[in-house]
Amino acid sequence: MAKVLTYGMVGGGPGSFIGDAHRRAIALDGKAKIVAGVFSSSQEKSLQTAAELHIDKTRCYRDYLEMAEKEGARADGIDFVVVVTPNFTHYDICKAFLNAGINVACDKPVTTSYAQAKELQNLAEEKGLLFLVTYTYMGHVTAKCAQELIRRGDIGEVRTVMAEYPQGWLAFEDDIGGKQGEWRCDPNRSGGVNCLGDLGTHVENAVATMTGLKIKRVLARMDVVVPGRVLDDNDAVLVEYETGATGIYWSSQVAIGSDNSLRVRIYGSKGTILWFQEESEKLTVIDTDGTIRTIHRGYGDVPESAAKYGRLPAGHTEGWLEAMGNLYRSFIGCILAHEGGTFTEALIDYPTIEAGVEGLAFVEACLESSQAGNVWVNVQH
Amino acid sequence: MAKVLTYGMVGGGPGSFIGDAHRRAIALDGKAKIVAGVFSSSQEKSLQTAAELHIDKTRCYRDYLEMAEKEGARADGIDFVVVVTPNFTHYDICKAFLNAGINVACDKPVTTSYAQAKELQNLAEEKGLLFLVTYTYMGHVTAKCAQELIRRGDIGEVRTVMAEYPQGWLAFEDDIGGKQGEWRCDPNRSGGVNCLGDLGTHVENAVATMTGLKIKRVLARMDVVVPGRVLDDNDAVLVEYETGATGIYWSSQVAIGSDNSLRVRIYGSKGTILWFQEESEKLTVIDTDGTIRTIHRGYGDVPESAAKYGRLPAGHTEGWLEAMGNLYRSFIGCILAHEGGTFTEALIDYPTIEAGVEGLAFVEACLESSQAGNVWVNVQH
Amino acid sequence: MAKVLTYGMVGGGPGSFIGDAHRRAIALDGKAKIVAGVFSSSQEKSLQTAAELHIDKTRCYRDYLEMAEKEGARADGIDFVVVVTPNFTHYDICKAFLNAGINVACDKPVTTSYAQAKELQNLAEEKGLLFLVTYTYMGHVTAKCAQELIRRGDIGEVRTVMAEYPQGWLAFEDDIGGKQGEWRCDPNRSGGVNCLGDLGTHVENAVATMTGLKIKRVLARMDVVVPGRVLDDNDAVLVEYETGATGIYWSSQVAIGSDNSLRVRIYGSKGTILWFQEESEKLTVIDTDGTIRTIHRGYGDVPESAAKYGRLPAGHTEGWLEAMGNLYRSFIGCILAHEGGTFTEALIDYPTIEAGVEGLAFVEACLESSQAGNVWVNVQH
Amino acid sequence: MAKVLTYGMVGGGPGSFIGDAHRRAIALDGKAKIVAGVFSSSQEKSLQTAAELHIDKTRCYRDYLEMAEKEGARADGIDFVVVVTPNFTHYDICKAFLNAGINVACDKPVTTSYAQAKELQNLAEEKGLLFLVTYTYMGHVTAKCAQELIRRGDIGEVRTVMAEYPQGWLAFEDDIGGKQGEWRCDPNRSGGVNCLGDLGTHVENAVATMTGLKIKRVLARMDVVVPGRVLDDNDAVLVEYETGATGIYWSSQVAIGSDNSLRVRIYGSKGTILWFQEESEKLTVIDTDGTIRTIHRGYGDVPESAAKYGRLPAGHTEGWLEAMGNLYRSFIGCILAHEGGTFTEALIDYPTIEAGVEGLAFVEACLESSQAGNVWVNVQH
Repeated sequence: MAKVLTYGMVGGGPGSFIGDAHRRAIALDGKAKIVAGVFSSSQEKSLQTAAELHIDKTRCYRDYLEMAEKEGARADGIDFVVVVTPNFTHYDICKAFLNAGINVACDKPVTTSYAQAKELQNLAEEKGLLFLVTYTYMGHVTAKCAQELIRRGDIGEVRTVMAEYPQGWLAFEDDIGGKQGEWRCDPNRSGGVNCLGDLGTHVENAVATMTGLKIKRVLARMDVVVPGRVLDDNDAVLVEYETGATGIYWSSQVAIGSDNSLRVRIYGSKGTILWFQEESEKLTVIDTDGTIRTIHRGYGDVPESAAKYGRLPAGHTEGWLEAMGNLYRSFIGCILAHEGGTFTEALIDYPTIEAGVEGLAFVEACLESSQAGNVWVNVQH
Repeated sequence: MAKVLTYGMVGGGPGSFIGDAHRRAIALDGKAKIVAGVFSSSQEKSLQTAAELHIDKTRCYRDYLEMAEKEGARADGIDFVVVVTPNFTHYDICKAFLNAGINVACDKPVTTSYAQAKELQNLAEEKGLLFLVTYTYMGHVTAKCAQELIRRGDIGEVRTVMAEYPQGWLAFEDDIGGKQGEWRCDPNRSGGVNCLGDLGTHVENAVATMTGLKIKRVLARMDVVVPGRVLDDNDAVLVEYETGATGIYWSSQVAIGSDNSLRVRIYGSKGTILWFQEESEKLTVIDTDGTIRTIHRGYGDVPESAAKYGRLPAGHTEGWLEAMGNLYRSFIGCILAHEGGTFTEALIDYPTIEAGVEGLAFVEACLESSQAGNVWVNVQH
Repeated sequence: MAKVLTYGMVGGGPGSFIGDAHRRAIALDGKAKIVAGVFSSSQEKSLQTAAELHIDKTRCYRDYLEMAEKEGARADGIDFVVVVTPNFTHYDICKAFLNAGINVACDKPVTTSYAQAKELQNLAEEKGLLFLVTYTYMGHVTAKCAQELIRRGDIGEVRTVMAEYPQGWLAFEDDIGGKQGEWRCDPNRSGGVNCLGDLGTHVENAVATMTGLKIKRVLARMDVVVPGRVLDDNDAVLVEYETGATGIYWSSQVAIGSDNSLRVRIYGSKGTILWFQEESEKLTVIDTDGTIRTIHRGYGDVPESAAKYGRLPAGHTEGWLEAMGNLYRSFIGCILAHEGGTFTEALIDYPTIEAGVEGLAFVEACLESSQAGNVWVNVQH
Repeated sequence: MAKVLTYGMVGGGPGSFIGDAHRRAIALDGKAKIVAGVFSSSQEKSLQTAAELHIDKTRCYRDYLEMAEKEGARADGIDFVVVVTPNFTHYDICKAFLNAGINVACDKPVTTSYAQAKELQNLAEEKGLLFLVTYTYMGHVTAKCAQELIRRGDIGEVRTVMAEYPQGWLAFEDDIGGKQGEWRCDPNRSGGVNCLGDLGTHVENAVATMTGLKIKRVLARMDVVVPGRVLDDNDAVLVEYETGATGIYWSSQVAIGSDNSLRVRIYGSKGTILWFQEESEKLTVIDTDGTIRTIHRGYGDVPESAAKYGRLPAGHTEGWLEAMGNLYRSFIGCILAHEGGTFTEALIDYPTIEAGVEGLAFVEACLESSQAGNVWVNVQH
């Protein structure tokens, strides 16, 4: 009988979509059970969520510091914590749990500065702990398929990339009002970027994951489109990779009619791969001779390394939740392997703190470029 | 703190995709917990699944009869049972649990004959029990949206319907071999139909659910396409509704390249609705003047009766699992209301045994029509 | 210097879309020049069109009888006539020109009865004249591609066909008014069918052309949906081919939002072909293993027999006009070969009077079936 | 009886796709007839084409200088000339015909330098002659529709634009060989740019036409991707308009699987417009509330200023040829109005030499930017 891990959560109280989503995603496989948490800064709301989740009152803590300390001290303390608070709080929370010897799963962007992210990376390494950054979209079977096809050379050497993530939910002046919009557009809580941190990092991570390319330098133009805003809501970035290949990244919150329209198009010397998050059950692969093939999840064209994540036969649509579930599947598998002494780096098939660090390096280089009048800036690694 | 129901399962042992799927779907909302079951005819395999699900050994029964008896007798017995065995066993199992006073959720088609289905309907009514038949696709938010738009008259009076469900998984002679294919194509276990029972009933239910139309009569041609088979694998049905409107239903297992391609096109006197299961995040509505509107789950065009089932914001794709979860959401809500004394028929927003009965009436009329040389046969109600 | 043929037209006067379309299509290749005609039953209107087309007044005739006689008698008489009048007049006009020794291109359906069509076929044969029936859609490069792929066995033996042609332009009661709608819905001028003659014959011809299958028998339900009409506006036909394969044909004029939505889906023992008239620049081919390939006009996957009709490189979209032009290209090529003594049957790559006869045989069998209460009726050949 | 204009052509000899295309496009309306030309630098080939086109030998000239002189001197000389030679020859040829008092239609880019284009503009103005630059794609009814919807404010103020034109035909090293590829990649004949001149100017013109925005400055990165080439084959341009709105333009010849994939996405303060050249029969308009509407050519949503160019009812697909025909329709209409003394600027509904000048201004600014290391460069107007 397989061991069931236990976990706790910081954030995800009443009305939180993202906390709920993480819990559902973890529940998909039944390999981990929530037993502790700080769900809200309001103790009352926190207890309400704890009750709904059938969590013992004594493990519903006042704050994350108490939680890290007490869970770290328990013999049956949580195996990992899920951090789903606003970006600017990630750093302190993650640090506390790492210091308490607890593995961490944290929403992206993992911190609001490169230095902080790097510090968490070093800390996790030092403590021998695992760290998942939930770039959810990369959990899609088709994203993993694209990654493997490119890795094994199906489209040759990557030459140029067009990648974008437009949304429309902040297209209007009074959209600043919503709770989400409020902190995202507030420089004190968002760490100097809004759109680029929220969406641009997804673009950066998607391309990095699929192609394996490292960015050498960026030239960014970050604009504030909607009057009254302080932080960027539309960003164009020219990218040069270490191989000499080039890319264009676009992210926007003012593209009316776009939802989570993360789209990656990768052009290689022998073919092309087109991937669109909102239609993630399929992938388009274009061969050297121009033949366009649509690959469906669940078919033989999907390599085993990707196909194994499919939970449902082709035709039974999977979505975003399954994608997130897939990240946790690998993360939980690694924790179990770790505890069982069978862990190796090769088991890791989820975005780690390293991906988080890359994201912040990208953001900081873009900020510097944009502020300097759109000039090339090297990205730290 | 909301009560959590308990449930048991018959079927769904090692390697069963459908049992696993039901459990994941129920887990989405955390409103019911599995505590009992007979997962396989092999006691060993059954215990293996029980262990994986952390079910107490004493509630892993030898057979469904024992389970129905003992769970029915316990003070803390299960609130409902989920039946996910092959079609031909549904009737006996459901009857046993109804007789034991336990609510039932059963896969479709609910039995292999109209008479049996009708008997279950009467039994459930007599016992005052709830009965969910898991026509999963109708749980999609967009399917519910189509249903509501038609109900409120957006496309006027329905004139004609084109509905189809092609699959390709049984297109080849040696496809009979798989375990699924084996019993589906075996007349002793499938009850005289293969494709029409598996897929045709989904078509029938989808149109009935969305349009509210009752079928008056059918003219069916059920063919065996792949050599060596006994039961139908490709079916064409002409349909006449009680209103005088007409329909064409096509279901097939030999359509290479089709997965779960349930597609419903409904043409009314004032507009048109197009719905496709494999792209269930959107719905196409055509207005009287020919304007084509694409409605996305999560937008204002979706009426509240449908929108409330969305778990994720637009752009975070939902799929088949959420659709099934939505059926259970309403079913579990009704059980709770029942237990709390607040239940009314109006709360039911899932396919009941009545839908199951309609499905069998459709199948039997088609069989009679096909055997009589493709003549019109009235459908019982 | 290549010879330029001359042609005349019956119909196609002021405001006629279809006459204009034929002239533009023929003009695409510059291989034939219009020099004669009767463009309207009003002499004045006819002369107006003649003037616009720079046709000598003396060759603008009072009626088709005069035109057939005089053009047949001239040494430099027209090489072919284009007949674009309402259906019920085709027979008399075509007969007159055939009797005058002039090749004929006629819109479909070629007559309003099987007997008439057969008579024209015999007459053309007897006189050694060529006869094009303008089933325009079959001129698309991708339609020819589908035809060739099936002929050479790419999808194996055809098992079942889903073919349809919905339109929405006659969806409303007052749509009877328009000039087109008026004669189409008038039994005296349409020959007993409306929708089936206009659209159903396109479906029949498209499937016959692509698959080469001959229909053995049909079971048809022809309905009048819009109140106040006499002739069918929505038709469902079950089809059985001589090979035992089956088909479903649907045609409709009440499908709001549909334009010329001729769609053919052909399922074989080794693969599938999907073709949609409104997106005729591409073709979908599904291989035995379920791989979905999108084939674009202009690529190597398109066999030479089809590719040679492309006038523009891939990406420069071709449409309906080019499709019609392709029919004329082959027709004119055959006339030239005929005159030059190099003609063989193998040169014919356009729908002939034989296709016209098949269309009427299909219509008459469907009418008989529908009137007899939807029973199987054999199709004459 | 409407006057038929006469025209001549420079270029478009045996095997020339583009010359043939212009002639077919002009033939669509029958308003102008070809009567003169220099079709090839080889006199023999030129005469061959003249013969095929039934042009009098005496009007098949040795070179364009002779043609301009003689046609300019004839009482019945051509009304306009069509120039379809390689880009680097446009300037001299156009100048000769303008000097001879003959209206000019010329392929784009109209010259290889801004100075030359400006000179032609001044010359045309001085001589009172009309000048069409055949940016063909802007002739599509849906492109004109987008233009009108934006002009009248349907999507509010334009905020940002994503526009691209990827092709794949020069993706490989040995693709330099073809005749087209040869001169395009040759700096002596292409004027310093390859991809940006051929494709980037289409992007620039499409956005300018649809939005009416003027570019203030550009920041370009022009890359040579395929080894062995001298001129750019992949270009990224950041654009800033005079209004402060921004844009990203991408053009490429190494995007395997792309044909003429000109795609323009325009995001405004009140909505969004999406247009794709390869599916030009439709246009997507997204309203402020996120409703996605698909507008088909031929429906009431298309304003009359665009709809009037449709030659075929909706469903009868139109393509690239009709788009080019639409440019000539307006151009020929203007020449006739000019000759008839009824001409006003408001009649012009085609890209003029002014659009040609803008194109060259864009190219030169991009070249300067790219060579200076991707810095902002102002665009001349």
